Amino acid sequence: MIGIFDSGVGGLTVVRAIMSYLPEYDITYFGDTARTPYGTKSAETVAGYTIENIDFLISKGAKIIIVACNTASSIATEYVNGKYDVPIFEVITPAVEMATAVSKNSAIGIIGTRATIRSGIYKKKIVKINPAAKVYSEPCPLLVSLVEEGWLKKPETAMIVKKYLHPLKVRQIDTIILGCTHYPMLKDVIQRKIGKRVNIIDSSLAVADKVKTFLKNRPEIEASLTKNDTSRIFVSDVTDQFEQAARYILNRKVLLEHVRR
Amino acid sequence: MIGIFDSGVGGLTVVRAIMSYLPEYDITYFGDTARTPYGTKSAETVAGYTIENIDFLISKGAKIIIVACNTASSIATEYVNGKYDVPIFEVITPAVEMATAVSKNSAIGIIGTRATIRSGIYKKKIVKINPAAKVYSEPCPLLVSLVEEGWLKKPETAMIVKKYLHPLKVRQIDTIILGCTHYPMLKDVIQRKIGKRVNIIDSSLAVADKVKTFLKNRPEIEASLTKNDTSRIFVSDVTDQFEQAARYILNRKVLLEHVRR
Repeated sequence: MIGIFDSGVGGLTVVRAIMSYLPEYDITYFGDTARTPYGTKSAETVAGYTIENIDFLISKGAKIIIVACNTASSIATEYVNGKYDVPIFEVITPAVEMATAVSKNSAIGIIGTRATIRSGIYKKKIVKINPAAKVYSEPCPLLVSLVEEGWLKKPETAMIVKKYLHPLKVRQIDTIILGCTHYPMLKDVIQRKIGKRVNIIDSSLAVADKVKTFLKNRPEIEASLTKNDTSRIFVSDVTDQFEQAARYILNRKVLLEHVRR
Repeated sequence: MIGIFDSGVGGLTVVRAIMSYLPEYDITYFGDTARTPYGTKSAETVAGYTIENIDFLISKGAKIIIVACNTASSIATEYVNGKYDVPIFEVITPAVEMATAVSKNSAIGIIGTRATIRSGIYKKKIVKINPAAKVYSEPCPLLVSLVEEGWLKKPETAMIVKKYLHPLKVRQIDTIILGCTHYPMLKDVIQRKIGKRVNIIDSSLAVADKVKTFLKNRPEIEASLTKNDTSRIFVSDVTDQFEQAARYILNRKVLLEHVRR
């Protein structure tokens, strides 16, 4: 099946996108809720957790892995590249390709966790595709907590989003990448604060599209994936909050299975 | 020496209080920064981490342990009681004793993480001392993130504090317990929003006072503690943010030692 992991609940936006683009495929998800968040932690620690998570999903039968966490994607991809037989997708490259394709003025904004922004990976990848691009990044560390608290519509959240986006707005970006899988939950308020003419790139949709194309071109891998439209969700810490958020994102009842970390 | 742990940086307010009340005593601190925060996680997970942390500090030579994390104190004390030869202090009881002593109208407010408030331990302990007490609790889950981001003086923080404290303010409490070791960093804004007549109980000072009294009454344990005015700080994830916060709280340069978790 398709194995997907994130530090917590955010990666379920990628599960939702895969369910919509590839509806019949079986999915196994791991949310490392006992050690969430990753975005405030060091590269070494995040890389170690990423390797553990990939090993876990492979042990459960994953034939494709999606690193549905931007922090892990931005830090750990270089550590895992070439180390595994299964193809490993991350959420950075598909979003970068989509952003460079739609931007007209080549002024692109990135928002993400502190660790993701510090890695500089978005800028590096964008400039590789379009050397003339102007890339502006802003870490938005509080947004993950606000999403996990369910403060999606509160005025404080709108104020904090406005404060974080202000430096990007003055740069007149025409495209913004949501560089964290939690942020699609705040898409409405982000659109309102950055301005309605700015394209919002949601990496969950970008990676699902990329995986779909990949499977079309690689029938031998496609054939190895089971297709019973079932999903299993593993978490390292079982909480009511995760269950509620998962039900909200996936719009269905979920059964959580516990893995000790 | 005296062993102290917390999920992250907050417990350093207890280290600061111990340094002030018992200046010559050696301290070993462990901040579980790779798995922080604890307050949003399940009781089972927090209890497991607490036992690991106590074992670690004993292996380093701790003769007294202070659980400088309200979440771990509220959840795990029952798991560890009687299991260890060394005395284990937690931050709940000293704050409860201080609050019941100073409150005149017996209307006491508690703020803490979701896990701490859910445990109901403050109410249980307060009512045991004063059965007529009226206890009102509010979880304030975003405050830990705001403190860790250093947003101590931002207007958004003041708005969020005001929103969290509003239900306590209308109850006309005369005493509030800061039921999380991060909250002393927000003491000024909390005092402003709850009203200047309300007593604020800082559990870091309450526990330091309790340990000082304990050592006076137990000279054999007091004699087993080394006194070179040195402190060691171990963390499970080394970040610039922790180092800056530690320097800010302790007002001295700190050297972080890494322990893998």
